[in-house]
Amino acid sequence: MDTADVVTAYWDAVGRRDWAAHGAQLDDQVVYEAPQSRERVRGRAAYLRFCTEGFPGDWDVMLVKVVAGPYAAATEIRSTEDGRSQPAVTFFDIKTLGYSKLINRITEYWPDPYEPPAGRAGLAERY
Amino acid sequence: MDTADVVTAYWDAVGRRDWAAHGAQLDDQVVYEAPQSRERVRGRAAYLRFCTEGFPGDWDVMLVKVVAGPYAAATEIRSTEDGRSQPAVTFFDIKTLGYSKLINRITEYWPDPYEPPAGRAGLAERY
Repeated sequence: MDTADVVTAYWDAVGRRDWAAHGAQLDDQVVYEAPQSRERVRGRAAYLRFCTEGFPGDWDVMLVKVVAGPYAAATEIRSTEDGRSQPAVTFFDIKTLGYSKLINRITEYWPDPYEPPAGRAGLAERY
Repeated sequence: MDTADVVTAYWDAVGRRDWAAHGAQLDDQVVYEAPQSRERVRGRAAYLRFCTEGFPGDWDVMLVKVVAGPYAAATEIRSTEDGRSQPAVTFFDIKTLGYSKLINRITEYWPDPYEPPAGRAGLAERY
C-alpha cells in the first residue's frame, strides 16, 4: 500500500462505517486536530469514539481529490446529508512501520460558504 | 524544480509581493476556484489582478505544510493581518512543460473558526 492507498482506504472505510478497517489505518498514537474548533483527540481508541459518536446522522462521504507524497497526503471530500453538501480538507502524516503505513497525525478543516468581499466583485466570476 | 519547489516558490513570491516571480509559476490558462464563495478566475492575467487587487491590506503569509505528489500539491498557510491569523488550504494541479512545471489549477479554502456542536463535548480536548 502506498500513501494514496492508505488515505483512500481510510475514506472508503468511513463511508462504509467499517470502523475495524478504519482503525487498521491508524497508528495507536494518532493525533487528530481540527484547527477551526481547536479540538484535539489523542490515540486510536479516542479517535474512533470521536468518529462514531461525534458525527451522528445519515451522511454520505465522497472522495474528491487525493494528493500523496511519500510521508504525507491531503484529501478533499464532500460530505452530504439531507441534500446539503459540505467539503472537508484533511492533511495526513503517515508513518512507515515495516511493510505497513499508518496514519499518525490528522489535521482537518470543514470550510463553510461565505460571500466574497465587495472589493472583489468584478475580479472573479461566480459559479 | 519539483512540485514541492513550485508551490513553495509560489507562496514565497506571494509573501514578497513579487508578482513577476509569482506569475512565472502559473500556466497561461490557470484556473483558480474558491468553492466556499463560488469565485472562479480564468487565466494568468486575470488571476494576477485578483491577487493584487482582491487582497489589499498589510498581511503576512507563512507556509505551514506542503504535500507534494508528481502532478499535484496541497499547502496549508497562515495569513496574518493586524494580529489576526487565518489559515488557507490550497490544492494545486501542476503541468509539466519540457523542463518546467507550471501551476494549472488552484482550488482554495479559507476556513473560519467555529464552535464544536454540543454533542462532541467530552469526545475531544480543546486547545
